[in-house]
Formats: sequence, C-alpha cells, structure tokens
Amino acid sequence: MISNPSLPKGFRAAGIAAGIKKNGKPDLALIVSETDCTAAAVFTQNKVKAAPVIYDQRLIAEGYKLRAVVINSGCANACTGERGLKDCEEMAKLTADALSAGAATPVAPHQVFVMSTGVIGVPLPMDKLRTGIPAAAQALSEDGLEAAAHAIMTTDTRPKMAADDITVAGDERQGGPRIAHLAGIAKGAGMIHPNMATLLAVVMTDAIVTPEVLKKALASAVRKSFNRISVDGDTSTNDTLVVLANGASGLQPTPLEFEILLTSICTDLAKQIVRDGEGATKFITIEITGARDERMAENVGRTIAKSPLVKTAFYGEDANWGRILAAAGYSGEDVHPDKMSLWFGGVQVFAKGAPTSYSEADATAAMKPREIVVRLDLGLGSASAIVWTCDLSHDYVTINGRYRT
Amino acid sequence: MISNPSLPKGFRAAGIAAGIKKNGKPDLALIVSETDCTAAAVFTQNKVKAAPVIYDQRLIAEGYKLRAVVINSGCANACTGERGLKDCEEMAKLTADALSAGAATPVAPHQVFVMSTGVIGVPLPMDKLRTGIPAAAQALSEDGLEAAAHAIMTTDTRPKMAADDITVAGDERQGGPRIAHLAGIAKGAGMIHPNMATLLAVVMTDAIVTPEVLKKALASAVRKSFNRISVDGDTSTNDTLVVLANGASGLQPTPLEFEILLTSICTDLAKQIVRDGEGATKFITIEITGARDERMAENVGRTIAKSPLVKTAFYGEDANWGRILAAAGYSGEDVHPDKMSLWFGGVQVFAKGAPTSYSEADATAAMKPREIVVRLDLGLGSASAIVWTCDLSHDYVTINGRYRT
Repeated sequence: MISNPSLPKGFRAAGIAAGIKKNGKPDLALIVSETDCTAAAVFTQNKVKAAPVIYDQRLIAEGYKLRAVVINSGCANACTGERGLKDCEEMAKLTADALSAGAATPVAPHQVFVMSTGVIGVPLPMDKLRTGIPAAAQALSEDGLEAAAHAIMTTDTRPKMAADDITVAGDERQGGPRIAHLAGIAKGAGMIHPNMATLLAVVMTDAIVTPEVLKKALASAVRKSFNRISVDGDTSTNDTLVVLANGASGLQPTPLEFEILLTSICTDLAKQIVRDGEGATKFITIEITGARDERMAENVGRTIAKSPLVKTAFYGEDANWGRILAAAGYSGEDVHPDKMSLWFGGVQVFAKGAPTSYSEADATAAMKPREIVVRLDLGLGSASAIVWTCDLSHDYVTINGRYRT
Repeated sequence: MISNPSLPKGFRAAGIAAGIKKNGKPDLALIVSETDCTAAAVFTQNKVKAAPVIYDQRLIAEGYKLRAVVINSGCANACTGERGLKDCEEMAKLTADALSAGAATPVAPHQVFVMSTGVIGVPLPMDKLRTGIPAAAQALSEDGLEAAAHAIMTTDTRPKMAADDITVAGDERQGGPRIAHLAGIAKGAGMIHPNMATLLAVVMTDAIVTPEVLKKALASAVRKSFNRISVDGDTSTNDTLVVLANGASGLQPTPLEFEILLTSICTDLAKQIVRDGEGATKFITIEITGARDERMAENVGRTIAKSPLVKTAFYGEDANWGRILAAAGYSGEDVHPDKMSLWFGGVQVFAKGAPTSYSEADATAAMKPREIVVRLDLGLGSASAIVWTCDLSHDYVTINGRYRT
C-alpha cells in the first residue's frame, strides 16, 4: 500500500466523521470530479441487495455521466425497504446541492453514485447526513484520498489504497510519452466472498476511456482480482465497485494497456482486503494448476479458500493437508485424487494419490510464515488460477460474535 | 440420547482401545450379527473418497449379506493410495478370521463392512489392528452398543446413540402385536456437511426388511435427517451410513412403518451430532417455510446454516438478522427480500421487505437460550424444510487449529 497516493487529475476527495458511527470515527467519504466521468460498475450477485445497490444499478443502466461518489460507513442501508431507497435519493440530492453551491458546473442528483457499508437492517440516520454531506464538501481536497479511504472502513484495521501510472505513447511533437494516472480505494474486512462483484471500491483515472472499453476492462479486471479472494465465504448485500474516468489528463491509453493497469490496481486492492481480513494472521495464496479450464481451477481454489477446516489449520500452523484435498473433492468439479499433487511452499506432501515421504518438520516449517503459498496440481490439463484467502482465527469469532454491540 | 440402549436381537457389539489413538482412548468398534443381514448404505459424495468408502461401495454393489462392521477411529485411511485399500482388505480378513474361530456359521471377509475416521493422509497402523481386532471379538456383548459408540468418537465429547421399537401388527393367534427393534450409533463432530450421505453411522434392526425396502427407506431417511445438518460446511472424505437388518425378530413391518422409524432414528442421531458439533454452544433449528419446493427450502436453509457470519452471531447472542437474509440472498435460489419474513423464536424482526418495530431487548432475549428456532418465510409457495446447525465458537477454532497435534 502506498501512503496517501495522489488522486488523478481533476479529482478531489474527503473523509470526515459525521456521527453515524457511535465511536466518533470517520464515516463519510466524498469523491468528486471537476468534469463529467465515464463510469462502469459491478455489483453484488446477492438476491438481497442493499438499497444503494438497487439505486446505483439504475444510474449505470441509464448511462449517466457521474460527477461524485458519496459513501457512508456504519450503516449498510440494506433490508430497509422503501425507506432505504428514499434515503439514497436524499443522499444524492444533498451531495448534488452541496457541490453545486457556487460551482462553475453544477452537479445533478443523477450524477451522484451512493454507497453504504455497515450493519444490515438499520435505516440511515439521515439527520447526520444532512449536516455531514455539506461538511464533507467543504473538506474536499486534492490530497483527500487517504481520508476517504479511512472513512469507508468498518472492521478494517487499515485503509486500502492503490495507485499507478499509464504511460501513453506520444511522438516528440507531443513532448514524448506522457503519463495518465489511476488510483483506487477499497474496504473489507468481513462478508467477503465476492461473486462477479465486490465489497466497496472506487477506482478513478484521468485517462480518456470510452464507456465500452471501461466496461470490458472492468469485467476482466474484477474476474481476476476481487472475484479471486475470500475472507469468510459470505457474499455481501452491498458489494459495489465503480470506476470513474474523467479524461482530465487528455491522454487515451490503448484498451489493453488500460485493462492491464486496471487489473493490477484491482488485484492490489483485493489482496489488501485479504491481508486485513477480519482476525487474519496469515495471507494464503492458493495456486491451482493442471485444471481442465480456468473456471475449474478457480472453483477448486475458491472451495479450498472457504473451508473452515482449511482456514483453522492455517491459523494453528498445522500442515493438515488432507483437508485441502477433501475440500477439492467436494468442490463439485470432476477431480481425481490419483492425479493430484500438493505442495506447501517448497514441500511436496502428496504425489498423484499418495503421501510423499516428506518430513513433518519441513511441512510444519512451511506453515510458519505470515504469507504461505499452497499449490494443488489437479493433473488434468494446463489451466490454472490463483485465489487469495486468509486464516480463520479466534479474533474472527470475537469480531463477529459482537459486531453490532 | 438413551443411555446404552439395547441392541436388536441377534446383534452384539464391542468397543476397545487398540492403541491407534495416542491418548489411549477407545478406538476400535465391532458390531456383529449372528446371522446374515440385508444391508443398505449411503456414502460421501466427496470426489476424494477414503479407502474404506471405495472398499465398502464394492461390497454394497455386489449385494453381499453382511455379518459385521469394523470401525476404527484415530485414522481416516483417506488419501492413502493403494496401500489404503490393501489395509481395508486386511481389516476385513482379520475380522472374518476372529469371528469365524469356533463359530457355528463362519464369516467371510466380504461380509465385513469397514469404516475409519480420524486424521486424513496417514496410513492405518495395521500392527495395532492385528492385535486389536481379535481382542474386540473377545469383548463382544449384547450390552456393547455404548462401548462401540464410544470407540468411534474423534472430537465428539459424548457418544451418539438412538433406539426405538416397531410394533408389527398381528392377530390373536400370533399373540397380538409384537415388537421389532432398531438401534443406531453415529459420530460427529467436525467436517460435517453431509451431501446425500454422512459421517459415520450404523443402524441395526432385527426386523425382516427386504433389500428394496431397506434401500428406499434409507434414501428417504437420510434426505430428511443427516442431509439436513451442518456443523462447518466441510463434506468429509469418509461419510458412511450403513443399515443392517438381520430379521432375528421374525417380524416384518410395512415398508412405510419401517421408513418412518428409520427416519426418526436417523434424525435423532443427526441432531445429536449437531448438539455436539465442535465447540458448539447453541443448537439452532432453521425452519424455511413458504418455498416453491422442498429443494429450494432445503438449499436456503443449508446456506444459512453454513454462513460463518450467521454462526458467529449466534455464538455472540447477537440478533444480527441481516446476515440471515444476506445468506438466503446468495443461496443461488430466486428469493425476493420483499416477500421474506423472519422470526427469532417468537419475535418477528422482518416483514415482507422491511424491519418490524420489534424491541431490541426482545430480539436479544430470543438469542439467549441454548436451543433457538429461526423461521424464515420466503413468501413464494407452500414448501418447507428444517435444517439443524450449531454456532461457530472460539473452541471450534481451537479444536481445529491443532487437530493433528
């Protein structure tokens, strides 16, 4: 994680404490572009969708050019019925009003993307937002990315940020190659098992990107980043990732360049979420090779990443590799133990159907580091996938036994 | 649980310490019928099957009349390659030899059903079984059911047993209605998320039951009992349930009578497993009503029962009902939050898309008992299903972080 990376050109951000969280921590983030942005977003596949997800899906479907993203933590505005949708509308209107006062180009309510995260089933405290949103608008700054990343945290122990540059080719008359910027923030840390969507994340760029390129690049980036992580196997009601491109750099990278960079930023943010998973003490990279196709590899990897028995064994630093094979076996994929081989770090413990003569001391030593790579070769083909997960610790139980209190 | 219920007529059982477990606890069970038994069995659907599962599937496919079941705990004989299958063969042969010595009707090796439970990936210590199996045969007794139930325990804190009678109609010349018996044992306590099969369980009856009736009754009973429980969402490599009917009572119940009683015994055993789930402090009954069909109800119930966030909230006695709706939403079923209603015990917290005006004190009080009923009405139809589960506690993490050490 880079400490307070720069926002791309033409973006400002803020994060303040609006009083939504009882403990007084920052709970309201605002991200604003000076000019209209091309936008693309992915949302949770959960049938129980939070009000802001339903609200934002409409904005994206209409193809509105976005100007702002307003995000509160401390309350998910999920399972809140009709009132929840009305509250989203008011959040957007409050934001548009605060940004339009004295602005060169006013912001319309339908240009404001709304996100919430926190406890499910509790209505938004709108009185706090009525004072908070104008205050956040006052606090907007070109250095505000880290403050915004702080304000969207729930059980996260640290903010998640990533940034990178795209070099766009140019000849000498243009002053040689020039640079466009990307930056993103995200939050975890529980109910993390994204499915074609994710948690909360916002990525901004000052590159010129067409709506078609943005949509395609986002789908590809999410598939290989946020859709490859799991903290606890619970898919959230609020997962939302939005990408904003305001073109303020005047530079247009090639579609593939943009896709690669967006994938890199999303992977960076996704891995930060796993590293800060609720109660996590280990970061585990599960590499599945020898699959018939990538989908198979991904599904086996995700099943292993979800298994409470696998996750507790990592917590206990116990090289209980049978649990990994068992999880692969119930993944629903047509795997064959006789063809499987398994490694913990550099130690091969299982080779095509039978345990190797590995030393227990070596296997135990491989479980000690904070970051562990496990490789399972299915012996069926040449496709592969990597899934990132964390362990299941006593602290996960403590955090989630008393989340609302 | 009944304390040491009687074995059905013509059965004997034993449980001894053969030295497979390092702590010296009982680890070898033997169940024997004087005469040939009709048998039916269900097995794990995990693609990674333990050697005894592969071995027993062959016996059942061949339709052999069984005489004995030999079960060791402390070692699962799973992921052990060719050697694992050879060890199963030797276990069956050792058992047949020990039972045939001086017996009126000798036992053939293919009449011995073999089961193992414990650590995955370690070969069976055959030297312990070579002395243990003859010792268990010596210890066989008509009062041996509880000893056998003890000897198949792993992380279970108590043995699981169930027994019941079937009254078979008879006119006065037959001495009026007469009674046949059923008894069963099972073990949990982790890697419990049966799928068309289950953990280890043995049910015996002295009723006369044809192979066809036994097979059909078992399929129906398992669907409504063992397939409706979850401790941790991990499907084991060793799940096996076998039912033996030796006909020693001379009584033949109707197929439906038998099916109902078998379902009752299996449900009793399944619920005992959940009550003694690893680290469990709560027994949670999840009742799904208003589903389009039973499969939908069951799937929603199982998804809720697997959610770590739901399970930790129960542990923390936190009425965090949004997590239950979120889990229903990612079950893959076509559910609609606007039609859902949810109750904790007698307290309705959610009604067709919005929270009720329940008092938080009432909801919290509903979370206090050791046994809690949660009802989720999907509002879509008239089908229902009950799934039983337990909470996820600190002790679950402790037990599974250090299972092998």
